[in-house]
Amino acid sequence: MEERLVLDGLPVLARIPESPKALLLALHGLQGSKELILSLLPGYKEAGFLLLAPDAPRHGERGRPPSAKSEHYVEEVYQVALAFAEEAKGVAEEAQSRYPLPLFLAGGSLGAFVVHLLLSQGFRPQAALAFIGSGFPMKLPQGQRLEDPRVAALYGTPPALKGETYGGVPLLHLHGTKDLIVPLERMERTVEALRPHYPEGRLARFVEEGAGHTITPLMARVGRAFLEAWL
Amino acid sequence: MEERLVLDGLPVLARIPESPKALLLALHGLQGSKELILSLLPGYKEAGFLLLAPDAPRHGERGRPPSAKSEHYVEEVYQVALAFAEEAKGVAEEAQSRYPLPLFLAGGSLGAFVVHLLLSQGFRPQAALAFIGSGFPMKLPQGQRLEDPRVAALYGTPPALKGETYGGVPLLHLHGTKDLIVPLERMERTVEALRPHYPEGRLARFVEEGAGHTITPLMARVGRAFLEAWL
Repeated sequence: MEERLVLDGLPVLARIPESPKALLLALHGLQGSKELILSLLPGYKEAGFLLLAPDAPRHGERGRPPSAKSEHYVEEVYQVALAFAEEAKGVAEEAQSRYPLPLFLAGGSLGAFVVHLLLSQGFRPQAALAFIGSGFPMKLPQGQRLEDPRVAALYGTPPALKGETYGGVPLLHLHGTKDLIVPLERMERTVEALRPHYPEGRLARFVEEGAGHTITPLMARVGRAFLEAWL
Repeated sequence: MEERLVLDGLPVLARIPESPKALLLALHGLQGSKELILSLLPGYKEAGFLLLAPDAPRHGERGRPPSAKSEHYVEEVYQVALAFAEEAKGVAEEAQSRYPLPLFLAGGSLGAFVVHLLLSQGFRPQAALAFIGSGFPMKLPQGQRLEDPRVAALYGTPPALKGETYGGVPLLHLHGTKDLIVPLERMERTVEALRPHYPEGRLARFVEEGAGHTITPLMARVGRAFLEAWL
């Protein structure tokens, strides 16, 4: 059963177990929605996670996502990511005041980038999942210019290169070998960049052969097992 | 609670849940034992797996493992592996006649090599876990000669190079980045060799940063989640 909440003024879709053990804030990706990301995380509620999924700015019931036709497409995408990160903090704070439980974090695709952004900004969940994403922004297509200095800063120093700010928060990446949107190599470079800053056993990756840019049921299961290790 | 069984004439340690959903045959590694491998798989019984762990030839209550000082060390190790694979088939068969349940397979280190050996010989569990191991035999130290043609054959065509014989049995490798006994690269080469023979979503790897040659609690959790996907 899903419930609509308003947290920090934002529409949030929730799945609330009878006796929740923890909160899981789930961040969808570009052109996704709160409904979509929750549909990709089966079994979490049954395992005791109270799931909370907000719509990102310009997504779901909040408008239209950036258009790839826009000459400021990339800039608009990362403006969404930056704003989504700020909103996620507000939603997490209100959620924890309502439900005083440990907080976990998960994001898919651009939502996984937002997970990285949040960790690099000092946000401290118990553990985090980065599905089909990386801690680097997408390659800048030819002809795209960045005017927003905050977006330019993400390209100047991507979150993945600020591993010292992650506080060793347990982090699992889940990725397919045939991901054409976020190539596996971007995720592997992310782990490589974070490695020197992580203590043993808190940084890991799950790689599914043949999977494309999609959160598979297997990834969802493995992600849940990872979070449960930090409950 | 653990129980001692005799299956196909061999001593087997069992953990038996009240309502088992599946059998899990767990194969220990070199210098390991049935007790050791079961101690590394917490939570499996609670998840409904009836665990069965036999001692390998020359291990546990069956004698002394090959000595690294022997000039036939490598040959003796793979003689153990070959015999363990044969015995595992017998144990599995008697176990399934006693408990008519789907069978899963797990192995650690040399036990993971035996998992590969079994799959390459047409053995067909529902799914399999290869902890801290690979489908290639260890590098042959200088001065070691192989006289046993069956062992020489493993070096001639390692299981990992016979991916067409694996029948696409779902297989997860779990490995640490600091494994000095079975380097991560051997596991990655194994996946690479199997890749062309696997359909989407049935072959995967979990890599834990900083872990050495040990089955960590996190690996055990993730392995369990993988098996449950094929229950």
